[in-house]
Amino acid sequence: MKTCKVAMLGFGIAGRAFSRILLDNHSDIAEKTGYDVQIVTISTATRGTLNKPEGIDLAEAVRAVEEDGHFDRNDSGYCEWSAMDVVDQADYDVLLELTPLNIETGQPAIDHLKGAMSRGRHAISANKGPIAWAYRELRDLAKEKGVCFYFETTVMAGMPIFNMADYCLEYAKVSEVKGILNATTNYILRQMELGLPQETIYENGRKGGFMEADLSMDVDGFDAAAKLTALLNVLMDAGITPDDIDRTGIGDVTTEQVMGAVARGNKLKLLCRGGIKDGKVWGRVHPEEIPASHAFSGEDVVAVVELTTDLMDRLSIVQYGLETTQTGYGVFIDLMRVLRETSR
Amino acid sequence: MKTCKVAMLGFGIAGRAFSRILLDNHSDIAEKTGYDVQIVTISTATRGTLNKPEGIDLAEAVRAVEEDGHFDRNDSGYCEWSAMDVVDQADYDVLLELTPLNIETGQPAIDHLKGAMSRGRHAISANKGPIAWAYRELRDLAKEKGVCFYFETTVMAGMPIFNMADYCLEYAKVSEVKGILNATTNYILRQMELGLPQETIYENGRKGGFMEADLSMDVDGFDAAAKLTALLNVLMDAGITPDDIDRTGIGDVTTEQVMGAVARGNKLKLLCRGGIKDGKVWGRVHPEEIPASHAFSGEDVVAVVELTTDLMDRLSIVQYGLETTQTGYGVFIDLMRVLRETSR
Repeated sequence: MKTCKVAMLGFGIAGRAFSRILLDNHSDIAEKTGYDVQIVTISTATRGTLNKPEGIDLAEAVRAVEEDGHFDRNDSGYCEWSAMDVVDQADYDVLLELTPLNIETGQPAIDHLKGAMSRGRHAISANKGPIAWAYRELRDLAKEKGVCFYFETTVMAGMPIFNMADYCLEYAKVSEVKGILNATTNYILRQMELGLPQETIYENGRKGGFMEADLSMDVDGFDAAAKLTALLNVLMDAGITPDDIDRTGIGDVTTEQVMGAVARGNKLKLLCRGGIKDGKVWGRVHPEEIPASHAFSGEDVVAVVELTTDLMDRLSIVQYGLETTQTGYGVFIDLMRVLRETSR
Repeated sequence: MKTCKVAMLGFGIAGRAFSRILLDNHSDIAEKTGYDVQIVTISTATRGTLNKPEGIDLAEAVRAVEEDGHFDRNDSGYCEWSAMDVVDQADYDVLLELTPLNIETGQPAIDHLKGAMSRGRHAISANKGPIAWAYRELRDLAKEKGVCFYFETTVMAGMPIFNMADYCLEYAKVSEVKGILNATTNYILRQMELGLPQETIYENGRKGGFMEADLSMDVDGFDAAAKLTALLNVLMDAGITPDDIDRTGIGDVTTEQVMGAVARGNKLKLLCRGGIKDGKVWGRVHPEEIPASHAFSGEDVVAVVELTTDLMDRLSIVQYGLETTQTGYGVFIDLMRVLRETSR
């Protein structure tokens, strides 16, 4: 039995969802791949850090954080390492970057990934910052060091996009991407179709616990722009940052506009579009009216990506649900890809 | 440089589309994988058979069939081998099963695939018959012989379904499948929404060259049932045949019914659905009304598959275009998978 040692930076909702999937499938993975996957380090910003080269009791770590709010300070592996200490000093094969997003710079996640790959370790990012701000550099570093670098979770939370493109659209060229990439604004716009003003929708969402206090990342289109940048960087080698996206959020959209669109047989959507025209990359996030009769308008659609390719025409991946487990699964499937690729 | 020798059974539209993609990417493949992919045998029912262990001039073979209607009888590789002769006697690494579908038995394609795999050769099927009628047996034979057996083309012509599930939904369990799997009936139903009777639509379609003389495979739901069976067999190990599908086609659907659905805010679709209930597999192809506001109803949707899973909730793959190249690409991407898997 080979061992795959994993270090986790961050242990929030995605990290714990990943942990549950790993725990449930640990013996199947061992049987199928010959790998005993061990979590050896988990760092958090406020809940302590565990580092146990012999392997952390993952079920207990999940329990401690969820029930006690903190790792056990008396645990033999308890330590005060920062995330960067883990990157530089822990003994791992694969680093999982699961720290909170800094939408303006992608840091310090970029440095975490660089640090791990510079040490010849594989890296997985659920954090979209690095893919939006420094993809080309990170990809080239991975290539130079001969390590894996995956990030399926960064767009549509684990839905098959990047790994799918690598495995199922190989040698096909993507010339255009289109999508509804931010589920929160898509939900808000749909509620506005019922005549509700934005403020009421926010209030209900916060009371219901499914909207953040600060919605500007969503409403102002930053999240959508970062995801569009990630798609363009990875699928079309765009080499751009979110600053290059022509971005308008939905903050100024009125209930009248949304209902007017419906009256015209359309839907107002925060549409993300990008491509290459005359050798130049372009990207645009903007509220746009699209026909109600198009697949993107489906009221069951949470998010969607459409790719236009040379060999496979256009195709879409549609996400209908928003489950925590999907984010954890995105990290998990990237880790399974590392096991597959390193078994060659 | 390693060599990958490929035998093709059938050289129709799909086979020639595959050939074009291979020709265009031959040197890229060599660079990326280290494989020189050579077509060594092409058998056809009425256009002759070529067998050249040193490699066929593929561009010339495409030209001969498209311009002369027949392979060159003076070619040194020209022979009278049947498809089964090729399976049993030719020297190849990978067999491509591209012969016409027999919807009622899956034969002789099943025997072709069995013959190749029994000889320890990899097999790719663009023919859905074998996956609908004998999947479990073929899968087990592939496992026993340690060979690859892929069939991405069989449902939605090369759209990422089966390879996507293997690579991007690993360890997730599919509990239900749903889809619009037959593009022709979806087109007919949409035309009926304009008030046109079926006969007029057929007539226009035949005149336009995009509908077959015999539409019963489509209209009576045989094609959809075979595809649904393939999805259930592969994704849920159903072990069923098309005979187990509760099937009703669209032949008896009237323009009034279709327009009535529209008046009720719905669309009439030939819906394919299946899953496991109380340990028993069920599958159903039936004209059903679905809300016009759902993604499946999108007027730009040519075909769609939706999977319900435990770890990734529901997701769909949507096909918008119907291009010959897609069918060729499905075969091509399966071949690329063989190269990848055998490089391990």
